[in-house]
Amino acid sequence: MAEENYDSRKIDGRSLSKKVEEQVKQGVDKLKAEKGVTPGLATILVGDDPASKMYVRLKHKACERVGIHAEDQNMPESTTQEELMQKIQELNDREDIHGILLQLPLPKHLDDKSAMLAIDPAKDADGFHPYNMGKLLIGDEGLVPCTPKGVIRALEEYDVAIQGKHAVIVGHSNVVGKPMAAMLINRNATVSVCHVFTDNLKKFTLDADILVVGTGVMHLIKADMVKEGAVIFDVGITEKEGKVYGDVDFDNVVKKASLITPVPGGVGPMTIAILMEHVLMAASNC
Amino acid sequence: MAEENYDSRKIDGRSLSKKVEEQVKQGVDKLKAEKGVTPGLATILVGDDPASKMYVRLKHKACERVGIHAEDQNMPESTTQEELMQKIQELNDREDIHGILLQLPLPKHLDDKSAMLAIDPAKDADGFHPYNMGKLLIGDEGLVPCTPKGVIRALEEYDVAIQGKHAVIVGHSNVVGKPMAAMLINRNATVSVCHVFTDNLKKFTLDADILVVGTGVMHLIKADMVKEGAVIFDVGITEKEGKVYGDVDFDNVVKKASLITPVPGGVGPMTIAILMEHVLMAASNC
Repeated sequence: MAEENYDSRKIDGRSLSKKVEEQVKQGVDKLKAEKGVTPGLATILVGDDPASKMYVRLKHKACERVGIHAEDQNMPESTTQEELMQKIQELNDREDIHGILLQLPLPKHLDDKSAMLAIDPAKDADGFHPYNMGKLLIGDEGLVPCTPKGVIRALEEYDVAIQGKHAVIVGHSNVVGKPMAAMLINRNATVSVCHVFTDNLKKFTLDADILVVGTGVMHLIKADMVKEGAVIFDVGITEKEGKVYGDVDFDNVVKKASLITPVPGGVGPMTIAILMEHVLMAASNC
Repeated sequence: MAEENYDSRKIDGRSLSKKVEEQVKQGVDKLKAEKGVTPGLATILVGDDPASKMYVRLKHKACERVGIHAEDQNMPESTTQEELMQKIQELNDREDIHGILLQLPLPKHLDDKSAMLAIDPAKDADGFHPYNMGKLLIGDEGLVPCTPKGVIRALEEYDVAIQGKHAVIVGHSNVVGKPMAAMLINRNATVSVCHVFTDNLKKFTLDADILVVGTGVMHLIKADMVKEGAVIFDVGITEKEGKVYGDVDFDNVVKKASLITPVPGGVGPMTIAILMEHVLMAASNC
């Protein structure tokens, strides 16, 4: 018997992100034509971390594709807090820059919290500023964290109902788990947030209609932990011997899921597409 | 056989709030002695709603007890948005006012959202400003909504472990449910947020180690919906024929709970005590 083909269950983050980018491109063109405004994103990269450099490069390439002006503010490893704060203030003040992205992690001698607080919330492309996180929590979503927003967009694109469904989130980080919970609560899902302190994780994941996993623990979620027909988003990334793995044991879990994101090619591309959307949003509101 | 006495299971919000107020009073005395600063709370009440007037009066009485200067900014029903915004700005600018409380609901012709946004986050005694809600969501709790904070304080005072416990919240309002979820996630509970769209509410409540209910549906939670030994907070209030009822069928649920708040005399007094704590906190930080 030939092995079943599960391709139709795969949430194709790459083609989804192309669709979003196409919409952003149209919005950018319109903004240029109607108001003469070219959306601008400034990325701040302090030091030479290779992974951070790669992420910044991916974002700049996306900007190129959609017609957003991208500017690389590369600062040396030796940058002082004061210099970083000055740079942020300078970008806050510039009219041609609508989005500011501080690439994390910063070198250890710098305080990322005060730096992120210094970014004008209206230019906070990453959506991590407390003001934007608070608006998210009270249901007034503007600039919000890009990865969970990408999950919401995928749910919408694949016509997955959210209201009344049991959404289980594994991982309670500020970047994924907590904003993801807020977005799903705002859309009237019943939301359970699990994490490393959760007793009997399987009990929760087995009950999930929608499962979002972002822990960084390779293949934490096995087939016997998910419900038949669940919709699954894998936000985890583990690199091992040159290969990239998610938090979900995709090859086995796909047999039970109705929809599931692969790693790579799932939520990653969506995150960048949403970032583009945010820069356009910020430029349109200015 | 005599009926069992469940008094020891009752979380006594009145005596707990006295304890908190006593601590606040000591802090206020210290602040006066050491820095010559008297904490000041200004309440803004627009119109003559009797319930709102009563709430404001309760808060002013608490201020008196702990030595906080309380000021009643009573504005007529006919107040315009501009006048309200001016009043808020005036209070933001005053050095002797450390906490500002806008009593809700406002008359229908006024926009509460922009009014609340205008309050200086550092003086936001109620903790509803997006900036403070966002800090809460990312785990940097300062001025936060008073009612859920009162629940956390009660859990601490009664030595109830939170980490790893399953906390179930019924109701997803901005005032109680959502900030309550954030506080419990920050303390490493596994948190489920249920509400009117939840399918099979009982399945969730039956599994709760800690249950917080704030829906305004009288006696929604019955004895067969809770686990033996659960710790239960009833944040609901329904008035009926001159009597006040909670969301929990107390008389029957108390037989299964290990700890439970009554209505009235549970979370209500705690909310006001936490408000006092916030004004002291704001005055200490200035």
